[in-house]
Amino acid sequence: MREVAIIGIGQTPVEERWDKSLREIAGDAVIAAMNDAGRDRADGIFVGNMMSGILSHQENLGALIADWVGLRGAEAFKIEAACGSGAGAVHMGVMAVASGYMDCVIAMGVEKMSEKPMPETTAALATAADADYEADEGVSFVGLNALIMQRYLHEYGWKHADFAPFSINAHANAVHNPNARLREPITQAEYAKARMICDPINLLDASPIGDGAAALVLVPLESLQSTGMKRIKIAGSAAATDSIAVHNRHEPLWLAAAFASAQKAYAQAGIKPADIDVFELHDAFSIMSALSLEACGFAERGQGPRLGLDGEIIPTGRIPIATQGGLKARGHPVGATGVYQIVEVVQQLRGEAGQTQVDGAVTGMAQNIGGSGSNIITHILQLG
Amino acid sequence: MREVAIIGIGQTPVEERWDKSLREIAGDAVIAAMNDAGRDRADGIFVGNMMSGILSHQENLGALIADWVGLRGAEAFKIEAACGSGAGAVHMGVMAVASGYMDCVIAMGVEKMSEKPMPETTAALATAADADYEADEGVSFVGLNALIMQRYLHEYGWKHADFAPFSINAHANAVHNPNARLREPITQAEYAKARMICDPINLLDASPIGDGAAALVLVPLESLQSTGMKRIKIAGSAAATDSIAVHNRHEPLWLAAAFASAQKAYAQAGIKPADIDVFELHDAFSIMSALSLEACGFAERGQGPRLGLDGEIIPTGRIPIATQGGLKARGHPVGATGVYQIVEVVQQLRGEAGQTQVDGAVTGMAQNIGGSGSNIITHILQLG
Repeated sequence: MREVAIIGIGQTPVEERWDKSLREIAGDAVIAAMNDAGRDRADGIFVGNMMSGILSHQENLGALIADWVGLRGAEAFKIEAACGSGAGAVHMGVMAVASGYMDCVIAMGVEKMSEKPMPETTAALATAADADYEADEGVSFVGLNALIMQRYLHEYGWKHADFAPFSINAHANAVHNPNARLREPITQAEYAKARMICDPINLLDASPIGDGAAALVLVPLESLQSTGMKRIKIAGSAAATDSIAVHNRHEPLWLAAAFASAQKAYAQAGIKPADIDVFELHDAFSIMSALSLEACGFAERGQGPRLGLDGEIIPTGRIPIATQGGLKARGHPVGATGVYQIVEVVQQLRGEAGQTQVDGAVTGMAQNIGGSGSNIITHILQLG
Repeated sequence: MREVAIIGIGQTPVEERWDKSLREIAGDAVIAAMNDAGRDRADGIFVGNMMSGILSHQENLGALIADWVGLRGAEAFKIEAACGSGAGAVHMGVMAVASGYMDCVIAMGVEKMSEKPMPETTAALATAADADYEADEGVSFVGLNALIMQRYLHEYGWKHADFAPFSINAHANAVHNPNARLREPITQAEYAKARMICDPINLLDASPIGDGAAALVLVPLESLQSTGMKRIKIAGSAAATDSIAVHNRHEPLWLAAAFASAQKAYAQAGIKPADIDVFELHDAFSIMSALSLEACGFAERGQGPRLGLDGEIIPTGRIPIATQGGLKARGHPVGATGVYQIVEVVQQLRGEAGQTQVDGAVTGMAQNIGGSGSNIITHILQLG
């Protein structure tokens, strides 16, 4: 199996883009990544996207974007795994290069979420839940996460305020990220009094959606040996699934797919959690930060919030998360999010993360969650 | 790169399934393929599907189906390339096994098209066209194919009746296929007087949609060396794209992506068109049969219909097509079609094709078309 390296990154600001179409947003990220890599050709493009069919009446996104960015003829596919679509596309790209089928791949994600009124977008997001047993009962995504968080508070005795550090850290870091949707810092008091969305989740527990795209250029690591280019190696690329319907899980407070995919990625990379210098986790809701930290081995079960309260998640802490705002403040254009996370880890390993740079970061992890934990993809990157 | 073999196949009859849900149809095909392979575990499942989000309000299909068939935990993704989604999923599965990331993969396709009234289904199908420049102008899929066929008749001087052999052959073969949707033979006279759909395409030029699923089990070829199992090797697996919008193509009567993906697949397999014993092509409309035969090297440009008129496409001819009914008569559950095609080639190479068996078939090809030729995936299988 060939080792795979990332040689180019690109992203667009996460915002409402009334001036640009789906393909234009996608193209901006892909062209930026190809320019960053110094490439103008690719053998294939894998597009992470969840809702273009429903929200933009456009499927066949792979061919659409390939043509738009000047890659007509290249292999092109859309990959869907709900909010895990972006990292799913990267995982496919990794396998395409590792197998030897392709020598240069664009792995990207795009989502345009400001096409329709919010109720239609909420209904589209609910297609990530179990249509027959969850969505048709009227449970939205925030509803599912609220049920999980309520149970967590009950089971482990935390207070809602104990989750504040997750949101405060994300907002503080996003201030310095020009691509972030929310660049205002927040305080503990503001967190406490934010408008309730679905008890116990309030507005500042939840990530904002948005329009955005992010892209990577992947090549065989061996092809870089004669260049002076910084080598960012994909040391781990793994996925795992769980029941979509939360009520079907053995333990609703344990992200079994996060644990399984992280364990696979750790084994591929030959490392353990303590070796991770920066961790871009999937903080779509603050409860997910706690559950991810636990499933990936950074906290005991039920102890995720402790890391926030102890200051361990900020850029100078033991396990920095959401270093450029995370989903919470950078924003969550769902099919693109998994690629944004990997782009941000690359920025950290390259030392290009500016004011929220993690000192001496050489190993980073990104974890992208589809559904309420049903499809989880973990990547480990190393500067080598 | 590891070579990949197919050790199990499964399919459901193509029909309107009011009694079964999307996951149940998918599960029936997957379980059949796993039973055929004698396996009860897999590392990953790749699901080809185009419209589940719009028609069934269900995305996240990979995790949904993995859980339903008893593979909770396995890697799982949905692959979308319009009507080429099925073969796209197989292509991903091939790369997953070839790369060494996975040792046993389910590659499957499923589409449930009888969920909504026909106008909604037609609109959903139009998401495979260019939303901004084709679909929003009111051009449906049959409309695009009619424009292409009209131009072909004008350019090369054929009559509509010259396309009859494609439909007659497909229906004649489907009579013997218990999974086919249309099992009635048709005559030249019936073809000539069939109801016009979109001039010059009439009802018997067009394939029927339907609900259906098909599945394959893929493993490394090397893992079969000590077993007595018949070895069906995937000798070629390749894709290529073209502009989605037909008006953007340099030559609208030339399937550039069919040519490119077939050439790649021939090169991978080290063979030429004359080595192909059976060819399951994408006869969504009869014009597509002619164009595919030309692009894949079986006829000169503009001469595709000649093969039908000369009797070369029937099971005893030089290049048998639609041997179990093709899209025209087996039916076209769009995201599943590409997998049905490969299942049927496997049946031919195993000698299990019954009354339409191609004598001594050892090399077969399947070609799946997404959009009106925008995303084309070609597989070559060999009995070895």
